[in-house]
Amino acid sequence: MIKRLTIIGVGLIGGSLARILKQKGYCHEVVGCGRDVAHLKKAQELGVIDRFTQSVVEAVSGADMVVVAVPLGAMESCFSAMVGHLAADAVITDVGSAKGAVIAAARRTFGQLPAGFVPGHPIAGTEKSGVDASFAELYQGRRVILTPLAESAPEAVAKTRAMWEQAGAHVDEMAAAEHDETLAATSHLPQLLAYSLVNTLINRDESEAIFHSAGSGFRDTTRLAASDPVMWRDIALANKTAILAAIDDYSKTVAQLRETIQKGDGTMLERSFNRARDARIKFMNDIKN
Amino acid sequence: MIKRLTIIGVGLIGGSLARILKQKGYCHEVVGCGRDVAHLKKAQELGVIDRFTQSVVEAVSGADMVVVAVPLGAMESCFSAMVGHLAADAVITDVGSAKGAVIAAARRTFGQLPAGFVPGHPIAGTEKSGVDASFAELYQGRRVILTPLAESAPEAVAKTRAMWEQAGAHVDEMAAAEHDETLAATSHLPQLLAYSLVNTLINRDESEAIFHSAGSGFRDTTRLAASDPVMWRDIALANKTAILAAIDDYSKTVAQLRETIQKGDGTMLERSFNRARDARIKFMNDIKN
Repeated sequence: MIKRLTIIGVGLIGGSLARILKQKGYCHEVVGCGRDVAHLKKAQELGVIDRFTQSVVEAVSGADMVVVAVPLGAMESCFSAMVGHLAADAVITDVGSAKGAVIAAARRTFGQLPAGFVPGHPIAGTEKSGVDASFAELYQGRRVILTPLAESAPEAVAKTRAMWEQAGAHVDEMAAAEHDETLAATSHLPQLLAYSLVNTLINRDESEAIFHSAGSGFRDTTRLAASDPVMWRDIALANKTAILAAIDDYSKTVAQLRETIQKGDGTMLERSFNRARDARIKFMNDIKN
Repeated sequence: MIKRLTIIGVGLIGGSLARILKQKGYCHEVVGCGRDVAHLKKAQELGVIDRFTQSVVEAVSGADMVVVAVPLGAMESCFSAMVGHLAADAVITDVGSAKGAVIAAARRTFGQLPAGFVPGHPIAGTEKSGVDASFAELYQGRRVILTPLAESAPEAVAKTRAMWEQAGAHVDEMAAAEHDETLAATSHLPQLLAYSLVNTLINRDESEAIFHSAGSGFRDTTRLAASDPVMWRDIALANKTAILAAIDDYSKTVAQLRETIQKGDGTMLERSFNRARDARIKFMNDIKN
């Protein structure tokens, strides 16, 4: 159980977590914190939070669970604001998509990391953002990865895990570096490729006609391109090393494909497409089970 | 109205066309033709076709509308089989995703192209294939592009257009080369990138863990990778020139993005992502209207 849950950044991610935990009666009180009063009032009206403050100091005081759900680029200033104001038994977790950068920011800010700090990342979201888009079922059946540190207290890890399990998520633990490499490949790369595909078509003279001819395949492949540009700018910068490596792997695969098409090697093309198809079908079966 | 409609290749595309035209009472009789008897029997049982034959000669004899819905790689042999057996007033159209290659195959086969020949391409489909997957609504609101030739008789173009309009589609006409460049960008490129993305992840040592961590973004971006490998092998070979150009444009965009991330240029990243987002949102609004 959580006594006072503080959500810093009450958007899609923070708001959806608050909704489900309130619905389950898993916390006595939810305090929202953010920069935009109108946004916080909205969250209160929607019943997502019980009360709010714009002050991080006030928000974290007395909270036994602090969830930092601000964009990656705002994490460090957010940590800064709470130094010296956390309760001794407070657990602090975050939802950033790049763990190495968040941990580095926390180290710079806190000096010695609090034993209550448990970095985390819920693999959930939609291309929408903001508290209006939040809903209690967002985490149902989804994965949350925790990347506990040597400094993280086992009770803090357990409390963070229990919170996400209440939200309906499957919780895994892995090292931050492993998380960052994995997510670069499965999440950050697809996102960047969706942006790139749209940008490739915009650059063509006849781009109006081109978009007009696009079918459902194009629509699905580029759905992610509607996602929040600031959030993705932050992720691209925060997980730079792993993302560059993923882009390089991918570019090599595309270059090989180009060469196979150039050579007109039908056997190799079919083999390559079959391999992808089998893996994709297996992937869909795995996530169903 | 069509008296005898012959569908050569009764799969998702040919089967769905037969279903809707029968439903609308737009043809007196539908004859199916293909290599696999079990498959043709199935189509007859499903009521998609009235009767069938494995002989192209028999299938086209007496037909006033012949729709060639076989894979691109089988078009030429299919055309070959019908030379000298088409009725004088027969209209022949196809559904191939690469028009230049189909037209070249027809020229090689027929010598002088029949005045009834009207190349076409319905921009519709799912990642499924086969007559089991066919359904009457497939073409509702979708686009069909016809690429008539200098040799195509206006009545033949009109009859082909009317057929697709009966199926619920919007029919456009353009030059074959324009079709091929446009489709390379909006359809063939997204398909090849979906295969490439999956293949990139397979190549990694920890590919099991990677697929296990994939979220909905990955799922959407790679939906196309479940598509028929043989069909896409044929398309990649048939539309080679335009596809290589599209891959090169795209690779340049990805290389620029890589450089921007490498430099850590947040302003440029945000601008590029915003541009893609705006275009994608505009695209979705356009197809709604």
